[in-house]
Amino acid sequence: MATIKDIAKKLGIATSTVSKGLNGAKDISEETRQLVLDTAVEMGYAVKRVQRKGTHKVCILIENMEYNSIDQFGYEIIVGFKLAAARRHFDVTVLPTNLNMQAEEKYDSFMLKNGFCGAFLLGFSLHDDYIAQVHKTSVPTVLFDNVIQNRHVGSVGTDGFEGIELAVRLLADGGHKRIALLNGAKNSMVTQERHDAFLESMERHKLTVDPALVQNGWFVADCAKQHVAHFLEHGATAIVCASDLIASGVIAELKRLGKRVPEDVSVIGFDDLPIAQHLCPALTTVRQDRVSLGKSAFMLLEELIGGVSIGKLLLRPELIIRESTGPCPEKEAPKIPQKSLYF
Amino acid sequence: MATIKDIAKKLGIATSTVSKGLNGAKDISEETRQLVLDTAVEMGYAVKRVQRKGTHKVCILIENMEYNSIDQFGYEIIVGFKLAAARRHFDVTVLPTNLNMQAEEKYDSFMLKNGFCGAFLLGFSLHDDYIAQVHKTSVPTVLFDNVIQNRHVGSVGTDGFEGIELAVRLLADGGHKRIALLNGAKNSMVTQERHDAFLESMERHKLTVDPALVQNGWFVADCAKQHVAHFLEHGATAIVCASDLIASGVIAELKRLGKRVPEDVSVIGFDDLPIAQHLCPALTTVRQDRVSLGKSAFMLLEELIGGVSIGKLLLRPELIIRESTGPCPEKEAPKIPQKSLYF
Repeated sequence: MATIKDIAKKLGIATSTVSKGLNGAKDISEETRQLVLDTAVEMGYAVKRVQRKGTHKVCILIENMEYNSIDQFGYEIIVGFKLAAARRHFDVTVLPTNLNMQAEEKYDSFMLKNGFCGAFLLGFSLHDDYIAQVHKTSVPTVLFDNVIQNRHVGSVGTDGFEGIELAVRLLADGGHKRIALLNGAKNSMVTQERHDAFLESMERHKLTVDPALVQNGWFVADCAKQHVAHFLEHGATAIVCASDLIASGVIAELKRLGKRVPEDVSVIGFDDLPIAQHLCPALTTVRQDRVSLGKSAFMLLEELIGGVSIGKLLLRPELIIRESTGPCPEKEAPKIPQKSLYF
Repeated sequence: MATIKDIAKKLGIATSTVSKGLNGAKDISEETRQLVLDTAVEMGYAVKRVQRKGTHKVCILIENMEYNSIDQFGYEIIVGFKLAAARRHFDVTVLPTNLNMQAEEKYDSFMLKNGFCGAFLLGFSLHDDYIAQVHKTSVPTVLFDNVIQNRHVGSVGTDGFEGIELAVRLLADGGHKRIALLNGAKNSMVTQERHDAFLESMERHKLTVDPALVQNGWFVADCAKQHVAHFLEHGATAIVCASDLIASGVIAELKRLGKRVPEDVSVIGFDDLPIAQHLCPALTTVRQDRVSLGKSAFMLLEELIGGVSIGKLLLRPELIIRESTGPCPEKEAPKIPQKSLYF
């Protein structure tokens, strides 16, 4: 492990200057400070230093996820993370980020400069600069819904296989055979996972997958417009959606096309955001326990900081049955249970 | 949630008798006590009671796993569990179990009677009575290497897909094409996982899987005798084993058949037990960090007790490269790196 002396030697400067650079002293130039930080990161000095100082500062970096009100997906995740962190006396800084910020400063330098000993990355997509850099980082990092092969990086999420299975099983038990999947954006690991889970569940329930009924949208309500009519043309009697927002768009579009939910078409969401129960009809959905996701993310981060290399932590989903699902139309179908289903 | 009164009413006995039954008083018959306990379990009274009493007693139930010396697989897992539990002021009781004990008393009754608010089950196989009962339990329970769909039950293990990929990648980089897998016992989820992982990794490295080179043994050295000659007849130049014990048997059998390791055949184990470095040649193997597995199992159990439904927690494996692997014979092959490989 590199020392301050090693860094000074490599840069041909005094150890006191290196020390100033690392500690953010004002009496050296910004260029020198950046050079010291970059060299410290490159020589693997970064993380140990933060650990040795006993800092308990971590951050949540957020890109492309709404989190300011309780209606939004990220809100409770952050609440859960902060709750767990407070119990363990960690400071948490929440930082929105964007592509510019990521282009300006490298992930490891950013963490070192700000004294963070770990980070939770929320809402990043696979092509973000920071995700690319996380492949090589030695900073303890937790990702949400993304998986990266690096022993300093862990992933937290809800088990998509169980979630989709709960949804498909409910519909299959209700006699549905023409089940559609309106998935999220292509450039996302959960989209791929839910796609695979859908094929697996349909096979488990001996149902045929019609490729015309499996489509990618993106994670907003508007994407429904492009797909619902197409699903109806191909005989869908039920639509499984990759998020509650998508499901809200699907219900609106079905109404516009003169279809009743659930009498003509059943709709299932994913997430159980607060809006789910206020939709008309109230939305049957696969619940992600977001407070627990946040708590688990912190717990995982703390273990990574302590040197335990946890790669993956998956929470169980829960199916919340409300009014947007019913038996398959035009057939005698078994009655669907009217309460929560758990695995 | 059922109360003591509900239990008394259902059994037609006094509430004081129910109370005595639950608290292990000596002045009621063993039959009545058992009846009270079974009814309490059946009516869902069990866990809440234990939680309310603020008990911090958990147990590790062990079946069919060696754990008494540091050479054995279970030893460090238990050490890790106890370390994490001590930090959180939980009492841990380690209890060897067997089929008779499991036949005598139901899992939930056993837990209630002994005041345990959670359990870690080690070394159980899928056909054990307790595993069957865990499908329906409401007692927070952590399994090692088994997965059960119940929101009170979580699973801890090492990521077999990453582990097998590390092994196959090392061999593929060394120019091996005829790679064999000597897997563990059939009646085990990790065996299935490693089998699937092997097919996936071989495909990723554009290698053909010869079904003759994929065999199930069981988790002891002796199983090697039945398979090694067969592998050699089918041209294997490398053997991936599902445990270090199996690998030790494979090396012994290769020597008996006049083959050199690694010059003629490369061998890789799984686990990194202490014997791995003492074998001749020292064994290249996929390390499972057993202390961390134990720590993670406790952490998961504590979350389940707190109502967070974590389904799965996977640690990352690490490939420890020693002397039992080398380039593929009879061909110019790229040089294999001589240090640890991580993802």
